[in-house]
Amino acid sequence: MATFGDVCMAAAINILSAFAFFVAFAILRLQPFNDRVYFPKWYLKGIRSSPTHSGGYVKKFINLDFRTYLRFLSWMPAALKMPEPELIDHAGFDSVVYIRIYVLGLKIFVPLSVLAFSVLVPVNITGRYLEHHKDLTFSDLDKLSISNIPPGSQRFWAHLVMAYAFTFWVFYILYKEYALITSMRLRFLASQTRRPDQFTVLVRNVPPDPDETVSEHVEHFFSVNHPQQYLTHQVVYNANHLSDLVEKRKRMQNWLDYYENKYIRNPAMRPTTKTGFWGLWGSTVDAINYYTAEIEKKFHEEAVERERIVSDPKAIMPAAFVSFRSRWGAAVCAQTQQSSNPTLWLTNWAPEPRDVYWPNLAIPFVELTIRRLLMAVALFFLTFFFMLPIAFVQSLANLESIEKVFPFLKPIIEMPAIKSFVQGFLPGIALKIFLIILPTILMTMSKAEGFTSLSSLERRSASKYYLFLLVNVFLGSIITGTAFQNLNIFLHESASNVPVTVGVSIPMKATFFITYIMVDGWAGVAAEILRLKPLIIFHLKNTFLVKTERDREQAMDPGSLDFATSEPRIQLYFLLGLVYSVVTPFLLPFIVVFFGLSYLVFRHQIINVYNQEYESGGAFWPAVQRRLIAAMIIAQLLLMGLISTKDAANSTPVLLVLPVLTIWFHFYCKNRFEAAFVRFPLQDAMVKDTLERATEPNFNLRTYLQDAYIHPVFHKEDFSRRLVLDEEENNPLVPTKRSSRMSTPGESKRGSEASSEIEH
Amino acid sequence: MATFGDVCMAAAINILSAFAFFVAFAILRLQPFNDRVYFPKWYLKGIRSSPTHSGGYVKKFINLDFRTYLRFLSWMPAALKMPEPELIDHAGFDSVVYIRIYVLGLKIFVPLSVLAFSVLVPVNITGRYLEHHKDLTFSDLDKLSISNIPPGSQRFWAHLVMAYAFTFWVFYILYKEYALITSMRLRFLASQTRRPDQFTVLVRNVPPDPDETVSEHVEHFFSVNHPQQYLTHQVVYNANHLSDLVEKRKRMQNWLDYYENKYIRNPAMRPTTKTGFWGLWGSTVDAINYYTAEIEKKFHEEAVERERIVSDPKAIMPAAFVSFRSRWGAAVCAQTQQSSNPTLWLTNWAPEPRDVYWPNLAIPFVELTIRRLLMAVALFFLTFFFMLPIAFVQSLANLESIEKVFPFLKPIIEMPAIKSFVQGFLPGIALKIFLIILPTILMTMSKAEGFTSLSSLERRSASKYYLFLLVNVFLGSIITGTAFQNLNIFLHESASNVPVTVGVSIPMKATFFITYIMVDGWAGVAAEILRLKPLIIFHLKNTFLVKTERDREQAMDPGSLDFATSEPRIQLYFLLGLVYSVVTPFLLPFIVVFFGLSYLVFRHQIINVYNQEYESGGAFWPAVQRRLIAAMIIAQLLLMGLISTKDAANSTPVLLVLPVLTIWFHFYCKNRFEAAFVRFPLQDAMVKDTLERATEPNFNLRTYLQDAYIHPVFHKEDFSRRLVLDEEENNPLVPTKRSSRMSTPGESKRGSEASSEIEH
Repeated sequence: MATFGDVCMAAAINILSAFAFFVAFAILRLQPFNDRVYFPKWYLKGIRSSPTHSGGYVKKFINLDFRTYLRFLSWMPAALKMPEPELIDHAGFDSVVYIRIYVLGLKIFVPLSVLAFSVLVPVNITGRYLEHHKDLTFSDLDKLSISNIPPGSQRFWAHLVMAYAFTFWVFYILYKEYALITSMRLRFLASQTRRPDQFTVLVRNVPPDPDETVSEHVEHFFSVNHPQQYLTHQVVYNANHLSDLVEKRKRMQNWLDYYENKYIRNPAMRPTTKTGFWGLWGSTVDAINYYTAEIEKKFHEEAVERERIVSDPKAIMPAAFVSFRSRWGAAVCAQTQQSSNPTLWLTNWAPEPRDVYWPNLAIPFVELTIRRLLMAVALFFLTFFFMLPIAFVQSLANLESIEKVFPFLKPIIEMPAIKSFVQGFLPGIALKIFLIILPTILMTMSKAEGFTSLSSLERRSASKYYLFLLVNVFLGSIITGTAFQNLNIFLHESASNVPVTVGVSIPMKATFFITYIMVDGWAGVAAEILRLKPLIIFHLKNTFLVKTERDREQAMDPGSLDFATSEPRIQLYFLLGLVYSVVTPFLLPFIVVFFGLSYLVFRHQIINVYNQEYESGGAFWPAVQRRLIAAMIIAQLLLMGLISTKDAANSTPVLLVLPVLTIWFHFYCKNRFEAAFVRFPLQDAMVKDTLERATEPNFNLRTYLQDAYIHPVFHKEDFSRRLVLDEEENNPLVPTKRSSRMSTPGESKRGSEASSEIEH
Repeated sequence: MATFGDVCMAAAINILSAFAFFVAFAILRLQPFNDRVYFPKWYLKGIRSSPTHSGGYVKKFINLDFRTYLRFLSWMPAALKMPEPELIDHAGFDSVVYIRIYVLGLKIFVPLSVLAFSVLVPVNITGRYLEHHKDLTFSDLDKLSISNIPPGSQRFWAHLVMAYAFTFWVFYILYKEYALITSMRLRFLASQTRRPDQFTVLVRNVPPDPDETVSEHVEHFFSVNHPQQYLTHQVVYNANHLSDLVEKRKRMQNWLDYYENKYIRNPAMRPTTKTGFWGLWGSTVDAINYYTAEIEKKFHEEAVERERIVSDPKAIMPAAFVSFRSRWGAAVCAQTQQSSNPTLWLTNWAPEPRDVYWPNLAIPFVELTIRRLLMAVALFFLTFFFMLPIAFVQSLANLESIEKVFPFLKPIIEMPAIKSFVQGFLPGIALKIFLIILPTILMTMSKAEGFTSLSSLERRSASKYYLFLLVNVFLGSIITGTAFQNLNIFLHESASNVPVTVGVSIPMKATFFITYIMVDGWAGVAAEILRLKPLIIFHLKNTFLVKTERDREQAMDPGSLDFATSEPRIQLYFLLGLVYSVVTPFLLPFIVVFFGLSYLVFRHQIINVYNQEYESGGAFWPAVQRRLIAAMIIAQLLLMGLISTKDAANSTPVLLVLPVLTIWFHFYCKNRFEAAFVRFPLQDAMVKDTLERATEPNFNLRTYLQDAYIHPVFHKEDFSRRLVLDEEENNPLVPTKRSSRMSTPGESKRGSEASSEIEH
């Protein structure tokens, strides 16, 4: 049990480290040679170009103007300055909605803190149960918590009333926020300029036809069944192999660049390399000649493969992007069932071109259901049994077995200092590595489930990650034990006992979670702004690969909001806040600080750093709401379990109403708002169509849509650049400098690498 | 524990009583004066008319041809004779799909019985566990069950393998059946002649508009948003009060008929009545004059109310039936979202005109969600706590309190014979009455939930009733105790223990359920064919009310398949069969007999008796499948619980695979087939539209649809009659005699009473 002092100490350490991160950030960001790391967004927008202003050579790399260092927190007000509509234009709707999650946290937890501190803390302190039971181990903190109320006391009514008040407050805020996000989304969709996905539907599971090609079949089917609306379509090629080839060539290009740079700097010696694996084995050859030849070879292979794909009917997948004459036609086709067999001719809104996840477009229906089953089972085992393989690796990774495998290391390992370090370090490393690659594992699982857009993949991974955090971090910390052990306990305990078992441990874990919030939340968020990894990689690339200004642009890694991992983490804080709001209100201010700090940092990041990969129009909000509702229900059940052990059993029925109400609230909101995130109302489509027909009667939609949904490796002209140009011409928010524009600012990761190469 | 002998005895009794019912049926049905009770369907079809064949007066009422009595089971082959396509035309698609549930039962349980008797019964008998443990109480029957296997025996593998075999067999049959029903449904929908609901969409929650009436608003909205497709619409009037008036007048008409008949039979005395409540109090008046005047008054009231509805804008509900130029247009509108607020302009396929449940058409969205919440809570209490009010009533209904309230009954009640009868009878009567009115309560609850068609109301009530049967009959019988006590036990038992607790009791209850199947299943089904209640009511009406041939037609009550109560009962047999298939295979033949007998009886009934109220195109099949899947999962969990107590715990993981597979199978089938029951594919709509446009280019759809969806009380001409005429002219399956056609054969109960009156 930690005392007040311990918590203050931990707080001081974490505040200091957060402060240190901010100071480091303030210094680094002011150095011109870091400019592209900390302001890549502006470079991508073309508003900022490499710092070439007059001044000495040193000044080009280091900021010598000391006055700027004094205002080292000046980014904070700057981050708040940009108004929301402008921010949507600048950073995208998804990003703006994402940072609204932090605002939501503030809206929920600031009033909750105030209320809890003005009502529950006095009630708890004057409970004086712990003072009279000196035999119990407790800390000063516990005096502020529900533990300080004697069993059977009438004071629990205060907690019950507060539980109701908190629930209704959260209902109110959630409802208002959902309504707001929905109307923002509708306004956003309505205000958007013409985009290919507005007119296009993704058709999957096109049935095979003995007499027609896929393309003919699609054309005939839609000309017949959507006669006035069908415009054109684009079949999907299986270009996964070609993508691999392009990928490989790109890596070789990097090596070539590296050796060319080396040669330029030291023209006396032509660099050499070895032809074998990773340049470690094989015969030594002239590096530049070797890679030039290899790249030539790859280009040839690519051309052959490209030829094969276009001519081979087997390379055409039974899927197509079908475009319509109007948004109305596309909305109708996306929302209706086409064929009497509901597993054929599946139609869905097409994702944005840059949001498409191409490899998944051709999975047949039966395979899809089997994949989902397998992934569900896999997720279950991953969540509850992930400790088993890690324990196995840990049992192998001890000093004896290392010495056996690598006998030559023995003298080093046997040194006392190193030995103790390795012994302390080894057991943790397997777990650490697992946790680092976990998001990748989850994303791979989601990909295996066959989702066709990056946005849906991220949403899916996020829900998997949330389950993992809930079971292993939240429950795992409260009832210390592996998830598997806990599962075993729960299976052998009665349904009404599970909340009790978990509930009684909750007050005891408050200090642990307070520390967790400070380390993971406060310091973690402050570290986010430093961008250490991109900083290092940028400077490495800059040193070894960059030849031209254009290369330098490619060396920038603006990154993006990683919804799949960061949203579940926020949800964990919501869960902690809701669970502890009634039990240990002392935890709430820490949550409030987390949300406030995060809001500042991420608002700064989306303005200056992150480059959005795709735009889903805030399609993830229903998932955010769903997980918040789940957190509310968990909090209510645990409170019920906790209070029932306090001889206040008559309060159980009173509390039982809350989860029922919460479930009802969930369905109410779902029915009320969710459709706006899934379907496109015909009325809105019709309004936009009519408007557009009136303003641009002669627009040639067919030409506009022709190449929109071509696989990125086939892009002859860079479509997405054109798209952004269009948008910006219509919304001249900021003066643009096209000269310095990056080639494919808005394309998906998979696509951008391939397509930017095509242009060579 | 019942012995073989006991079960044989019970079987003999029940077979005899079933036989007695059949004999009684054979005799009664051959009497001409019962003809309308046992063959009403043919009267409604107009193929049969009152028996007026030559012969004596007696012959008109009693069949004296004794040869016909000898072939008293001749209806059985006759019932099987009609081929399925013809049966669909004759009895409707719903009825045919309904009796396929019995066929499904046979398809599942006949092979299961064969397999179980050839594998499991020998394995169980040779287990000899019970013989060596004479201390255990057991019966001969238990030797055939899993109880006879010694704990920890390797023989349990036979049961495991069989559990898998049974599961896969059921999967196979369910999948094939779902596929068949789906294709039948699609064929049925495709082969149907033109019907108003194919072109019509029910629009609810029309938002209020300050400047326009509902009708104008609807017209403008759909003309704008479905410009090429919108044809016409019909607003919905709130005619509930008018319906009540018509209803009241109808009852008076009955009394008038009664007194007129009385007067005709005994012209010497003019009948009198009293004006007060139920004719029991008040001043005595001439009955015929009184009712003639009253009916006149009601007619006037009706006319005023009718006037008010048409002129008062408040009588127009914010709902409308919107019709389109083509099936394609209606399909598009029904499947898409119209407005950006998903709770406004809700569009759904319109039910058939006779399937519409008018009173529910105007419930606003928020109210709807609150109603659903309240009904869900109510259903929970009804299911688990229904014993409480009944126990309360029972505590009141004892002899002492009766004597207190009605002291004058004391001498009678005190007589020993009556006293013991009343004492034995009273406690049960409250429960019995509750069980009889339970389906009505559930239907009222479903109505309160706001469903807009009779078919969906029935489906909803069926799922409520199934829950009730599952909890109170199945679980209640196995772990004897009220549902509430059981709920309490379960809440305090561990999740893994619940299947064990229930599972171990299962073998012990086999004989109870065998008896239940015989009494409720065999004898109950045989009683169904006798139609005692309609028989009595028909003869009562015939005696007191009938004046003309037309009245006699109205006195017929053909009834219909009562999906809401009979389908859940069938599901109970499926559940019993699946649960006991591995545990006590001896129960299976009883189930098989039940399904066979029911199939015969209900096929006979739908051919000769039942008159379908509406046609939903087999829309209930997904619900049937869902409940069967639930039964499979319950059976698998209980088997797991049972076997885990037999020291064969290593088998649990093997069995755990089954429910996972079953859930997967459920989702697979749902995705594969369910859409066909909910949505109308555009391709099919387009095919029908094109065909029709080619064959009848000049058909005036507007006139055809004009009055289709007018509230039944406003029907000037009898629309549904016209509909049936249309259909039959196109399908001259049987020679028709229009003369004797009933006025509104196909209308819903609510509608028919009202509309048939309008025609006077």
